[in-house]
Amino acid sequence: MPLDSGALLGPFDLAYQVYGTLNADRSNAVLVCHALTGDQFVVDDHPVTGKPGWWRMMVGPGRPIDTDRYFVICANVLGGCMGTVGPQETNPETDRPYGLDFPVITIGDMVRAQKLLVDALGIEQLFCVIGGSMGAMQVLQWAVAYPDTVFSAIPIAGSARHSAQNIAFDEVGRQAIMADPDWSAGTYCEAGARPHRGLAVARMAAHITYLSETALHRKFGRNLQNRPRLSYGFDADFQVESYLRHQGITFVDRFDANSYLYITRAMDYFDLAAEHGGVLSNAFRHRGGPTPVRFCIISFTSDWLFPTRESRAIVHALNAVAANVSSVEVETDKGHDAFLLDEPQFHEVIRGFVDGCAAHRGLVRPANAPATPATPTVAPDGERADLVEIAGMIVPGARVLDVGCGDGALLRYLTETKGVDGRGIELSMEGVHDCVSRGLSVIQGDADTDLKDYPSGAFDYVVLSQTLPAIRDPRAVLDHLVRIGRHAIVSFPNFGYWRVRLGLLWGGRMPVTKRLTHSWWETPNIHLCTITDFVELSRDLGITIERGLMLDRADRVRGRGNGGLVNLIAEQAVFLLSRES
Amino acid sequence: MPLDSGALLGPFDLAYQVYGTLNADRSNAVLVCHALTGDQFVVDDHPVTGKPGWWRMMVGPGRPIDTDRYFVICANVLGGCMGTVGPQETNPETDRPYGLDFPVITIGDMVRAQKLLVDALGIEQLFCVIGGSMGAMQVLQWAVAYPDTVFSAIPIAGSARHSAQNIAFDEVGRQAIMADPDWSAGTYCEAGARPHRGLAVARMAAHITYLSETALHRKFGRNLQNRPRLSYGFDADFQVESYLRHQGITFVDRFDANSYLYITRAMDYFDLAAEHGGVLSNAFRHRGGPTPVRFCIISFTSDWLFPTRESRAIVHALNAVAANVSSVEVETDKGHDAFLLDEPQFHEVIRGFVDGCAAHRGLVRPANAPATPATPTVAPDGERADLVEIAGMIVPGARVLDVGCGDGALLRYLTETKGVDGRGIELSMEGVHDCVSRGLSVIQGDADTDLKDYPSGAFDYVVLSQTLPAIRDPRAVLDHLVRIGRHAIVSFPNFGYWRVRLGLLWGGRMPVTKRLTHSWWETPNIHLCTITDFVELSRDLGITIERGLMLDRADRVRGRGNGGLVNLIAEQAVFLLSRES
Repeated sequence: MPLDSGALLGPFDLAYQVYGTLNADRSNAVLVCHALTGDQFVVDDHPVTGKPGWWRMMVGPGRPIDTDRYFVICANVLGGCMGTVGPQETNPETDRPYGLDFPVITIGDMVRAQKLLVDALGIEQLFCVIGGSMGAMQVLQWAVAYPDTVFSAIPIAGSARHSAQNIAFDEVGRQAIMADPDWSAGTYCEAGARPHRGLAVARMAAHITYLSETALHRKFGRNLQNRPRLSYGFDADFQVESYLRHQGITFVDRFDANSYLYITRAMDYFDLAAEHGGVLSNAFRHRGGPTPVRFCIISFTSDWLFPTRESRAIVHALNAVAANVSSVEVETDKGHDAFLLDEPQFHEVIRGFVDGCAAHRGLVRPANAPATPATPTVAPDGERADLVEIAGMIVPGARVLDVGCGDGALLRYLTETKGVDGRGIELSMEGVHDCVSRGLSVIQGDADTDLKDYPSGAFDYVVLSQTLPAIRDPRAVLDHLVRIGRHAIVSFPNFGYWRVRLGLLWGGRMPVTKRLTHSWWETPNIHLCTITDFVELSRDLGITIERGLMLDRADRVRGRGNGGLVNLIAEQAVFLLSRES
Repeated sequence: MPLDSGALLGPFDLAYQVYGTLNADRSNAVLVCHALTGDQFVVDDHPVTGKPGWWRMMVGPGRPIDTDRYFVICANVLGGCMGTVGPQETNPETDRPYGLDFPVITIGDMVRAQKLLVDALGIEQLFCVIGGSMGAMQVLQWAVAYPDTVFSAIPIAGSARHSAQNIAFDEVGRQAIMADPDWSAGTYCEAGARPHRGLAVARMAAHITYLSETALHRKFGRNLQNRPRLSYGFDADFQVESYLRHQGITFVDRFDANSYLYITRAMDYFDLAAEHGGVLSNAFRHRGGPTPVRFCIISFTSDWLFPTRESRAIVHALNAVAANVSSVEVETDKGHDAFLLDEPQFHEVIRGFVDGCAAHRGLVRPANAPATPATPTVAPDGERADLVEIAGMIVPGARVLDVGCGDGALLRYLTETKGVDGRGIELSMEGVHDCVSRGLSVIQGDADTDLKDYPSGAFDYVVLSQTLPAIRDPRAVLDHLVRIGRHAIVSFPNFGYWRVRLGLLWGGRMPVTKRLTHSWWETPNIHLCTITDFVELSRDLGITIERGLMLDRADRVRGRGNGGLVNLIAEQAVFLLSRES
């Protein structure tokens, strides 16, 4: 196999494990990609340490990646030390261990090797490729290199390129290994003594980056290790020291120092945009359109090794080509390692996305599988009559972005009645989860901060329904709506409604009405306006009002103008907007 | 000298530098405390590296710590390697280098040694003790151990205790040194070869923590080091690798590996609260009252080694005993190292605080010193007539907290006319800077998030002037006001004012008046209310309205009731509140 470096490798061994059963049309295969120090033992006990498989939480019968339903494959990466060819394996040319004669490999090489395996298994398209950390890099590489071979992709806690800080941490680890005299310029397999001390220091430094400061504080704080007071010496006085030393010592029993050098180097070299003119979104273009792969991008709030901004960059690039993408930032204090741990919210999102993809892929649900959440009736009820009016403004088959899409009621209604290609942004975790688990493409985000990510003219319609008063900067958001969409549709409660006016005039109190239901001190409606206010702001921003609908208390349409008397009798308004560009 | 470990040390050498001239009454001495790898060469070129002094930005003629005005002292810490006794110095008992026979030292021991120096110089009270990172630990230790010897204290980018994560990073560094066979169990001074490789790895790991991810990205990104493309090898392909290696290599020329072990251990052991029953605020009690030391606590937004929450914990503890404290979080992307760098805003705050302290201390300004900002007339002008009314509600000599104190106009007015003991909280950097540089004690903070830090009953009056509508959770803030203060004074614009009502009724627009000056889409007033609304909420919260003043458009007092007709004619209101506890 040709490598990115230009070297040739092979024939070579690729060690892998499979779980579950491949179905008749070979459409239920899930490829799991492991992280830096992981391996193919996803579910079964590890042959060296005897510990349970590293992703038992995620993969297995009844788990989010359900082995009763899917055929799961995981291969030890190229350069690894659990059976796949790597620096400790024998170099056929010299009949000695490769050591530093092993060619430097890349994430692309790892994925190319996995593709050979998938081909050998007779699988034309993987239903899903999933992985965290370096596994996420492989997932992204798979989607970019083989878009027709990947139905859905779940990069978790990853990045499209290794950051300067991460390269720096990798370099510290490598220098620690190379500083160990037992490393012997990489020839230790022949020399006998292994660079245990250097590898342990590398592991200790890296291990800190896998946790969050909060998690370390919660777990250890400044607790002393089996002693009543400080020893005034260099023993492990603190539990955190003892824990770190243990991490270092146990690691060297199951991992090879040269593998550590090669695999960290592959991560350093990863830069998905580099081969696409430095523009990440170009990596996601395919045959003149967006990549056909469905993405679910996941990050963790307390992960500082692969922070959410790295995942956001991927979401941004996917949005820039109008790809099909969902994204969630999971709230946790467990840091980068959260992807390996028992995080119910995280697992539920994966389950929802995978189930949604399975439905789209036409994979039949087995009789014993847990039920997906029932889809409620999609027709908006009387409480949200503005949704019916909004739908009336949208032409069939349009591309629609719903900003503040909640549980996806409008998106589902538009999908089923108008056949639109719908996307959503929603701030609440509950809303995003509801949407993603029903197969809608929704990213977790905030109108005030995330609209700038979207390219101009990416959608036919951008909808902002009843969300305007809760926005910090309505002026900027309106500007983005008419930039991103050829049309924007905005609905909001009218502060100029006569009950509001008279309530304030006679009662002397801030109004609480059917549409303004909160008390003044707790309302999320921080920027209230009247229809006249809105019309004036639109004019100031050079926005054209194409249509305006005013709804009264009984949700009857009471006007189609821009204000005037309607400002008194309308309790809410729906505007169709656009701007000449 | 007895050490915290119980060992005895001495007589010993303490190497130090001085700059400037000690004045006749020895009242102008500033002690600079250096960080882990710093030393006494604050201003002059380093005798080993030849580089300029490490804090030339801060200390020198015309600098914030002005050597034309102050007498500056800096001593190499105990355990250091620039002349003060440490593990590389000769043990008089064995006539060989101490090595690991050197006793383990603490920050307390370092400060105890410095106290001997200050005594020997005949200085009864230091005008200021200042330092960053480990220097900040020494500053805090000075203030706690010798409160009568310290007039003012400036701990920068520090903490009252080393965190689990920081202990973990220190431990990685120590393990890297000890893993180097040349370390020879600490006896390398005799053996000849020094543990350069281990010390370099320790420095590399630590150096990453001194910078921010943003700074690393800005400085290096993924730029290659003097090569057009990747080398597919383990050379320093990336600039960041080359930079880190350089940091490691140059460090070993000027620093001693055993000193690194001892000094990091002293940092690990630092826990100011531990000796005070685990309650940090107890460390700041003195003779039945608060510590007499004036504090200025400084942190940096992008510092993840000593993040702002560590500084906040110190501010919180100082507030809990009603000590005199100012605090600023400086906005910068340069990470922990910002305290060593050219950060104008940071330097201006230090200059302002030091100048303010000098005025309080009665230090005469030299003729050639730059002028402090002129203090504007303190009598509030007609635009802020509510301030006069607020002042009228406050008894002389009271303890007052002004929440959202702006540039400190009210605090200065109250200080000069009522002799109050005033403190402030202000969100804007400009406001905090104005206040601190005028000698007011103001912490940078947010009413919505920081009021919970203050103890109950800490003040006679807590003032919230015209800030209520900008608050996210007015209900919670009101609750805190009457908890922290025996009385609370709240002034706000009345949304029930007749011009507002009629404007909305007839104009159909959100009101813009003399007191409500912003358009609806840009107003910071996110929670507007009427006088009646406010009175009702107070009642719901069980708050007693002791007095109410309603001001009309001409700032005439138009009522002293709780609303009613006054709700129509008052453009703003001032309430004196309290709650039985």
